[in-house]
Amino acid sequence: MFELKNPRGTIDYLPQQQKVRQDILRKLQDVFEKYGYQPLESPILCHFDVLASKYAGGAEILKEVYKLYDQGKRKLGLRYDLTVPFSKVVGLNPDMRMPFKRYEIGKVFRDGPVKTGRNREFTQCDVDVVGVSSMLAEAEYFAMSVEVFKNFSLSIYISYNNRKLLFGLVDAAGIDADVASSVILSLDKFEKIGREGVLNELDEKGINRDSSEKLFSFIEMRPEELIQYLTQNPINDSIRDGIKEINELDMYVDAAGLSEYVRFSPFLARGLEIYTGTIWEVFLTDGSITSSLGGGGRYDKIIGGFLESDIEYPAVGMSFGLDVIYEVLKMKGEAGTAAPAQIFIIPMGTEKESFVLATDLRELGYNVDMEMTGRRVKRALDYANKSDIPYVIIIGENELIEKKFKVKNMVDGKESEVKFEELEGMMKDIIKD
Amino acid sequence: MFELKNPRGTIDYLPQQQKVRQDILRKLQDVFEKYGYQPLESPILCHFDVLASKYAGGAEILKEVYKLYDQGKRKLGLRYDLTVPFSKVVGLNPDMRMPFKRYEIGKVFRDGPVKTGRNREFTQCDVDVVGVSSMLAEAEYFAMSVEVFKNFSLSIYISYNNRKLLFGLVDAAGIDADVASSVILSLDKFEKIGREGVLNELDEKGINRDSSEKLFSFIEMRPEELIQYLTQNPINDSIRDGIKEINELDMYVDAAGLSEYVRFSPFLARGLEIYTGTIWEVFLTDGSITSSLGGGGRYDKIIGGFLESDIEYPAVGMSFGLDVIYEVLKMKGEAGTAAPAQIFIIPMGTEKESFVLATDLRELGYNVDMEMTGRRVKRALDYANKSDIPYVIIIGENELIEKKFKVKNMVDGKESEVKFEELEGMMKDIIKD
Repeated sequence: MFELKNPRGTIDYLPQQQKVRQDILRKLQDVFEKYGYQPLESPILCHFDVLASKYAGGAEILKEVYKLYDQGKRKLGLRYDLTVPFSKVVGLNPDMRMPFKRYEIGKVFRDGPVKTGRNREFTQCDVDVVGVSSMLAEAEYFAMSVEVFKNFSLSIYISYNNRKLLFGLVDAAGIDADVASSVILSLDKFEKIGREGVLNELDEKGINRDSSEKLFSFIEMRPEELIQYLTQNPINDSIRDGIKEINELDMYVDAAGLSEYVRFSPFLARGLEIYTGTIWEVFLTDGSITSSLGGGGRYDKIIGGFLESDIEYPAVGMSFGLDVIYEVLKMKGEAGTAAPAQIFIIPMGTEKESFVLATDLRELGYNVDMEMTGRRVKRALDYANKSDIPYVIIIGENELIEKKFKVKNMVDGKESEVKFEELEGMMKDIIKD
Repeated sequence: MFELKNPRGTIDYLPQQQKVRQDILRKLQDVFEKYGYQPLESPILCHFDVLASKYAGGAEILKEVYKLYDQGKRKLGLRYDLTVPFSKVVGLNPDMRMPFKRYEIGKVFRDGPVKTGRNREFTQCDVDVVGVSSMLAEAEYFAMSVEVFKNFSLSIYISYNNRKLLFGLVDAAGIDADVASSVILSLDKFEKIGREGVLNELDEKGINRDSSEKLFSFIEMRPEELIQYLTQNPINDSIRDGIKEINELDMYVDAAGLSEYVRFSPFLARGLEIYTGTIWEVFLTDGSITSSLGGGGRYDKIIGGFLESDIEYPAVGMSFGLDVIYEVLKMKGEAGTAAPAQIFIIPMGTEKESFVLATDLRELGYNVDMEMTGRRVKRALDYANKSDIPYVIIIGENELIEKKFKVKNMVDGKESEVKFEELEGMMKDIIKD
């Protein structure tokens, strides 16, 4: 006999939770489509070589790829993100109309350490566009993020920065280009480990204190002052380019009335190395959960590099965190009880008539379930109650003769007798959505 | 350099197709929920032992399981169906309220031969209930199937049979119980290979001609006559039980006005060995595609066997064929063009104002895209045209000064000038959904 269990880092999402997750995904999809993004579904199985490309995730992530062989002994892997499949689709479809705006929602797999909120099999929701250099793309993502979280009644802000600016500042501080990425990742920890913590990390990375302090002197300026100062004194080309992008993006954000949701944050870096320009993360305004609810950035070099192509593929994309959005909605009591039906019909020796009534009510658009196990009314009522079904109709032989139904409101416990011909009207009155 | 390609038997679903697939899935989900079925999401990764249980798919399917190991050297497999995960969830949640009605839509994997309509990675849509012995469960699936295909404007009928009846008839024909399953699978080919073909197969399986002809004398009776005859002369217990179930199911089907959609078909057997009672398949009435669009059956022994439990787990379930439904809709011209937006905005040096208009129109609920690459109007119009976007708004500097938009209907090619304040009203008039 086998032991019945799930593999480490995998989860069964039972209906109560899955219903809410599915509602979240539908809302996300509807907003994505409002912004001209179209669904794509790519395979989970990939040729291992494709996943192992140096422009894909790199050596770190390759250790976490699940590897397998098909019957033809081809080496395959399970995808670990949706960006490699996106790049692959662009490469496999050279006649594709550009810009190509797609979203994909699907499972990805990473055979790494398991902790709270970090599983080995999980769902990613990615929205990406390839073929747009203009900051309009970023502005659109900001507008989209604001709309997404309005639909969840969550108050958020978007923290953003620019990698060109960051690299330029690192250079202006006299730090070597080959440690720039590593330095930027330390800056990202400012909120977590504080000024001293970051400085210590930079010490350990061999950055001299003068350079570190110089770098801090920039990014600790008030954000608006920093931008104003660097607009006038760009110091180097990278800063000039970064500031230009920031100012262009700001212009669109202001014009569309989005400024109140957007904060320039010079410390923000994001973990991934792929980004080349704007980067952003979405946070709850009330700080009740500090993880970001989503984030993204511009990665102009990845797709062209991956495809070993001379064509330029400017790209911007973002991810929404399904699991963290679920956690927030649950915490706020917005993740409903997910009753399996609006109406539950209990037959007392009237299975046939009850089935007909269930069919009729479903035709009217209601979600209806009925007692099919023949258990006693008391136990059937108990089932409906525990399942949070709001209305129960009980049909006995007497009700049939008198052409009446007993309708029980499970919330207040009230029972009423309703004539056959009045039921439809009554249900319309009490069930509004 | 790696070769850019997808593994054999896997597919990228590009937006044009994926949009339709997604619409199909949403309609399916909405109907499933109307019948009290709730979503479940189970992991793709399974312990290999669980998949290899003798009550799971058996030795045949085990050859086609993708096997892999995690970093802890645990032997895993990719799930090959959604029934094993369903049984597993029932076993892992002993306090679950019964009956448990769930649907799951997800990827499954089979490393087998690849042909048209048969891939190695594909999506299954399963709806199952555990805990109901009554034929009400089957009747509900019939009603649900009728509603599902009404929503797709497809005219269908449900062909059904009963395994208890079939086994009873095989026994009554004097055929050994240990070849009964094999005999039934031959009967299922009647439509494909004809009477002679089936008889030859039965010869090859060592069934003597007298028994074969005896069996045929039953199942070639007119279906209603057969049922009437066996109701009066049940011959053996298995026939008696089967006929009782058929009559009970018929009663519910008649009462709910579903008879016109349902046909008793004594030859129908379905491939899988798991079924113990009712089995059914859904076909197009016009026969333009002969594959079934869905099918299901009762499997009362599987979950209890899988869990090695003495508890009874009567279960009924059905699958809807996403790929074949897509093919039918495409053939009937019902699989739309999936334009990425309803409105496309082309700025002529008016990026900022165009972005603001896009934001405003999205707030009104429209799906809006805009030209972001700075290409010429002619090329941007060409993009909108090829993408089947019905309306284009062109905004030049003059339009800004005159506070007017140029709106182009891409279907009839007509252009009109619309004042700022009239645009919203005009869009409401022309875009109805």
